[in-house]
Amino acid sequence: MRIDGRRNDQGRHIKITRHYTKYAEGSVLIETGDTKVICTASVEDRVPPFLKGKNEGWITCEYNMLPRATQSRKVREISRGKIDGRNMEIQRLIGRALRSVVDLKALGEKTIWIDCDVIQADGGTRTASISGAFVALVDAVNRLHKRSPFKIYPVRNFVSAVSVGIVNKVKMLDLCYVEDSRAQVDMNIVMTDTGKFIEIQGTGEQYPFSRDDLNELLAMSEKGIKNMIQSQKDSLKMDCLWIGTGESDEKVNNSK
Amino acid sequence: MRIDGRRNDQGRHIKITRHYTKYAEGSVLIETGDTKVICTASVEDRVPPFLKGKNEGWITCEYNMLPRATQSRKVREISRGKIDGRNMEIQRLIGRALRSVVDLKALGEKTIWIDCDVIQADGGTRTASISGAFVALVDAVNRLHKRSPFKIYPVRNFVSAVSVGIVNKVKMLDLCYVEDSRAQVDMNIVMTDTGKFIEIQGTGEQYPFSRDDLNELLAMSEKGIKNMIQSQKDSLKMDCLWIGTGESDEKVNNSK
Amino acid sequence: MRIDGRRNDQGRHIKITRHYTKYAEGSVLIETGDTKVICTASVEDRVPPFLKGKNEGWITCEYNMLPRATQSRKVREISRGKIDGRNMEIQRLIGRALRSVVDLKALGEKTIWIDCDVIQADGGTRTASISGAFVALVDAVNRLHKRSPFKIYPVRNFVSAVSVGIVNKVKMLDLCYVEDSRAQVDMNIVMTDTGKFIEIQGTGEQYPFSRDDLNELLAMSEKGIKNMIQSQKDSLKMDCLWIGTGESDEKVNNSK
Amino acid sequence: MRIDGRRNDQGRHIKITRHYTKYAEGSVLIETGDTKVICTASVEDRVPPFLKGKNEGWITCEYNMLPRATQSRKVREISRGKIDGRNMEIQRLIGRALRSVVDLKALGEKTIWIDCDVIQADGGTRTASISGAFVALVDAVNRLHKRSPFKIYPVRNFVSAVSVGIVNKVKMLDLCYVEDSRAQVDMNIVMTDTGKFIEIQGTGEQYPFSRDDLNELLAMSEKGIKNMIQSQKDSLKMDCLWIGTGESDEKVNNSK
Amino acid sequence: MRIDGRRNDQGRHIKITRHYTKYAEGSVLIETGDTKVICTASVEDRVPPFLKGKNEGWITCEYNMLPRATQSRKVREISRGKIDGRNMEIQRLIGRALRSVVDLKALGEKTIWIDCDVIQADGGTRTASISGAFVALVDAVNRLHKRSPFKIYPVRNFVSAVSVGIVNKVKMLDLCYVEDSRAQVDMNIVMTDTGKFIEIQGTGEQYPFSRDDLNELLAMSEKGIKNMIQSQKDSLKMDCLWIGTGESDEKVNNSK
Amino acid sequence: MRIDGRRNDQGRHIKITRHYTKYAEGSVLIETGDTKVICTASVEDRVPPFLKGKNEGWITCEYNMLPRATQSRKVREISRGKIDGRNMEIQRLIGRALRSVVDLKALGEKTIWIDCDVIQADGGTRTASISGAFVALVDAVNRLHKRSPFKIYPVRNFVSAVSVGIVNKVKMLDLCYVEDSRAQVDMNIVMTDTGKFIEIQGTGEQYPFSRDDLNELLAMSEKGIKNMIQSQKDSLKMDCLWIGTGESDEKVNNSK
Repeated sequence: MRIDGRRNDQGRHIKITRHYTKYAEGSVLIETGDTKVICTASVEDRVPPFLKGKNEGWITCEYNMLPRATQSRKVREISRGKIDGRNMEIQRLIGRALRSVVDLKALGEKTIWIDCDVIQADGGTRTASISGAFVALVDAVNRLHKRSPFKIYPVRNFVSAVSVGIVNKVKMLDLCYVEDSRAQVDMNIVMTDTGKFIEIQGTGEQYPFSRDDLNELLAMSEKGIKNMIQSQKDSLKMDCLWIGTGESDEKVNNSK
Repeated sequence: MRIDGRRNDQGRHIKITRHYTKYAEGSVLIETGDTKVICTASVEDRVPPFLKGKNEGWITCEYNMLPRATQSRKVREISRGKIDGRNMEIQRLIGRALRSVVDLKALGEKTIWIDCDVIQADGGTRTASISGAFVALVDAVNRLHKRSPFKIYPVRNFVSAVSVGIVNKVKMLDLCYVEDSRAQVDMNIVMTDTGKFIEIQGTGEQYPFSRDDLNELLAMSEKGIKNMIQSQKDSLKMDCLWIGTGESDEKVNNSK
Repeated sequence: MRIDGRRNDQGRHIKITRHYTKYAEGSVLIETGDTKVICTASVEDRVPPFLKGKNEGWITCEYNMLPRATQSRKVREISRGKIDGRNMEIQRLIGRALRSVVDLKALGEKTIWIDCDVIQADGGTRTASISGAFVALVDAVNRLHKRSPFKIYPVRNFVSAVSVGIVNKVKMLDLCYVEDSRAQVDMNIVMTDTGKFIEIQGTGEQYPFSRDDLNELLAMSEKGIKNMIQSQKDSLKMDCLWIGTGESDEKVNNSK
Repeated sequence: MRIDGRRNDQGRHIKITRHYTKYAEGSVLIETGDTKVICTASVEDRVPPFLKGKNEGWITCEYNMLPRATQSRKVREISRGKIDGRNMEIQRLIGRALRSVVDLKALGEKTIWIDCDVIQADGGTRTASISGAFVALVDAVNRLHKRSPFKIYPVRNFVSAVSVGIVNKVKMLDLCYVEDSRAQVDMNIVMTDTGKFIEIQGTGEQYPFSRDDLNELLAMSEKGIKNMIQSQKDSLKMDCLWIGTGESDEKVNNSK
Repeated sequence: MRIDGRRNDQGRHIKITRHYTKYAEGSVLIETGDTKVICTASVEDRVPPFLKGKNEGWITCEYNMLPRATQSRKVREISRGKIDGRNMEIQRLIGRALRSVVDLKALGEKTIWIDCDVIQADGGTRTASISGAFVALVDAVNRLHKRSPFKIYPVRNFVSAVSVGIVNKVKMLDLCYVEDSRAQVDMNIVMTDTGKFIEIQGTGEQYPFSRDDLNELLAMSEKGIKNMIQSQKDSLKMDCLWIGTGESDEKVNNSK
Repeated sequence: MRIDGRRNDQGRHIKITRHYTKYAEGSVLIETGDTKVICTASVEDRVPPFLKGKNEGWITCEYNMLPRATQSRKVREISRGKIDGRNMEIQRLIGRALRSVVDLKALGEKTIWIDCDVIQADGGTRTASISGAFVALVDAVNRLHKRSPFKIYPVRNFVSAVSVGIVNKVKMLDLCYVEDSRAQVDMNIVMTDTGKFIEIQGTGEQYPFSRDDLNELLAMSEKGIKNMIQSQKDSLKMDCLWIGTGESDEKVNNSK
């Protein structure tokens, strides 16, 4: 049995609170067990230089932790004078995940800034960030849609993420911090509601893993993803009705 | 009447939630109206170089805002590559305010890190930070005290802060953002529960003010301070009984 | 008696040398006792982005010390790689003080850069900087005025600053470094020639102070301010005749 | 047919030149088609702070490109003043990949610095870096081994990497730049010579992919890995005989 | 006799490989003994702000070393967070040397970026960089010339550089690292093919030198320069025929 | 005739004020014409890491300009966020020049920090800095010597510097800013009182120069150096009697 009494294929309790702060176009507090992340989506009426004049939008993310989100206090990036490598990797991942389910041409010349600020970290902060940020993104897109309807509603699919891993040779879903810090294999899966992969990042630095291991982990992650997407739907209720009405999942963006 | 219906000498609703996150030795969410700040106190078993071997402790603060705590998104310090001048000023103020009521020799060779992270900003974030951080500090000191009692309990007084100001020639207590952005005179007062000043910072960049103006504003602030200290006491309940048992308020620290 | 033989309410000798260096539109060496600051005012024909198109000017300040202005050598900011918090606080204060007596709309779309570089520091460098920078500012404004007269002369009032404090429970005017480093209460007052406050910054980190203490300190500071303004007038002579001819002191700028 | 005439499951020509520069303990030029990377391994007789006194070694990597390794000149990191997010992600990946096949306890209190500097980039620079850096690492470890034999030879397995992807819905091995820039799915696989995964990083930002797609890509990558490991063996010749003599692949490092 | 068997006035073997990498407009690997530098010239169709609208071009240089180009690994500039003083000095020198033989008005509104990246350092990297960068520059200028002929061919002269020095009171040409690290006098000479000086930088930090010493060193350097220019000519062959056809060496640029 | 009426081989008026500020062990204001530099020497009782335990001292320099030392205001390094290349080159030059005349072993494990802060710049700031810093250095060394006599007095020679150049094909001594900005050849010479060179830095970016040109410029510089050394002697008076009593000029330091 696991440290917090869960079965190996059981995720933690998920709670999604929308409209958590009042200024952002989308603002969500997502909690998965003791992990808590504030995800906001902010709309800006311009695009980064590399997209100027291309009639497309952009979604970009910044991820950070409050200094005492963790067991021992972590020095702020600005105090160390440089960006944390792990933070940068995570925010790039979140950005890719969200862009993958949005039709950026349909969005038009807008940037949506996603901010994921972890206020309490107990493992799985990057996957919680993706899942929570998606809800904030939908709220922001809907605010735009209500003010001036998009021709093609830009959000095509739900996207969620979960972690799976191997701890003491046992495969587990949704690792908490204690499990994660002992994991031999650590894998993050990003998936749409059509069951397709957006991203697979698996590392066996401590324990090279086989094709069979991989298959079992992927099966486990599918279960976790379904659960998370259900939580997103429960939270968004009527506000997710437009998703996917624009275009199918098999999009081919040629932009880089 | 004021924009949110308050009388001129009326502060906003105060709510202090202790044990807001689980890792920090002290962790408080303070809300004054729509302003919300997470204040944590973290204990570290060493002191900065300038205090090494002096047998004294230190309290230092870092203040920051989440990017979308404000009406328009603010670029993170690490993205701009430099520390925000306003943030630095505020964190120095908070540090001074808390150190002023703590016997640093009694604390011993420890550093208490105060982190004030604003998650929603509607004016008065620096005064709310001081008031909330004090409660987090007491929780952290008590945790040390319970583990191994101090000879002299280090917290000597309560300390709180409020803002006052002149808006359209009218003097007001506890300005919200809309009032603050139009204020002609803007003043922050830090005071102990014995009614003495720790800090007065008043600026009349838009409207030089007289001695009489000053006196009226100070009288108004005393009312706000009393209120805030009562909220701190209500929140701490039995956990503030040690405060002031160590030594009197008239301390003379010679350390810098 | 004080360390340098002064009475408690006596300021140090003030010396203001105009046209100290040859390129700046205004260039002043101000000496108060052993404190020496070079203050220059430089005119630039554009405004910062947030004022573009608003038909107003701006005044901004940078404050720094030469590395060996102090008793032990201080590492340069660029060598430490970050801006000193104290410097930033001081330069923001100087900027506010000067802007408070200037009609920025009358100035027009210009930026006046104030540089205060301390070449020798013996306490009171921030107040000396404000007092000296005002003279440099007037010289720079006059240079513009002679070249092409302003419709409304932009400088409305004199502004000066002094420090007061409590050392060993004794209240004193214009603290030198030795006094300042032992001060229990440390207060900086910025005032106009009409006797109104622009800024009050008082800190009793070592010694919470009462309303009565405050009143005595403010009375003492008024004396110091009068003295300093007289020195500014003696130095500027005929070149200060335009000050206040534009508009009254009770201005209400709505710009932030 | 592919742009350079290859079959879909055909990798590019691999050339590994050992002892490419003269000072580093290991120094390799690896070329895969037009991609050229200088990989050096440098031994330092100490470990980072977090490993002090733990009697273990460390392997860390820095990855960079010469400014004109690419079609248009890329600004140096030091000129932009901040580390490139992509570079940081890649160097973290390379470090993990190499550490995964080394017994860090057997290595002892040493750090091996891996530097991968791309002098010409035509796609697949991160996978070439891993494959080349492994050879440099073995040379550096052998140099230590010859000077003073390890009790347990620290390198347990070969490790190599390849890229696979989906371009215009066609699955391909070892993408060159033109293919990579149009790829809908982009995947990097790191694998040992026992056919186990160290790392899977797959992104379908442009094209969510199915389990079947994944399986086909993984099969293709296995072929590429085998080829690359053969090239490493051909290059190392007798100098790879010690690999794996220390301990089996199924190691369980508990260090983080 | 010298450490590597050379006579005192004998330079090391020179090898210049053009078209070393495939993307840059000019790309050269220059080797002088064990010193190896990749020099690229990249054309950009705009000029820095200070030249805008002046109808002139610019040539600027960046110089760097791979971390393990040297005997012990050197920390990257981006990791130290600041630019190396020595690197900056060298890149400014290379820029001046190349600009001195180019008619920037004839070049037109273009910037040529020179990148000198040392992959192996055995003394004389800055002089090798100048000599190699000149060849890369000519290749880049010729590429422009072939696409659209210049009215006046912009390269007026060959430029080369060598080092000379005094080691154990003995004067020597083209110091290798071991000699350089013991040199009492260290001098770098940049010269045109007309035998005129562009730059003399001589330092006798360890050994003040006389006019006679200087004269002997200059004579020695002339020999080295001639040799290096011959190597440039041998390498460029027919591609250097245009050099000097535009205008004479006695140019007087008034640009700064 | 020159712009300021001087003959071509005539330097500007030199004024050296010792004990210019009160804290530094050596503090000099040097003026050459309108160029004014504050040079301080500060003693620190430790050496940089690379000299630890070697029983030698070190001399290092920082050079900077006040923002309005120049005709148009120059942005501070800390505001630009990076060190100015020119500043870095100059401070390295000053450091080498001073170290060349000091017996660092005789100095013992001390660092002397030289700070050269230009308060007004009219050409020749680097040479004025060297000449003024030498006097500050002697004052600092004497202060040490008086407190506890050196076995071997560490300063062996006087060192001074001047600039020479070619403007409109005319050779001139000690260029002022207007001349310098039009110079075709610009040369800085550092020399001891025994007439030997410490450093020659000559650049003909605008005008390659011949051996004959060089010889004429060197002859001119000797005259300027003699003048400057006389000014140093006149200023130091009896305080320069120890110089050279320790050891002869032909020192051979083997330290790097």
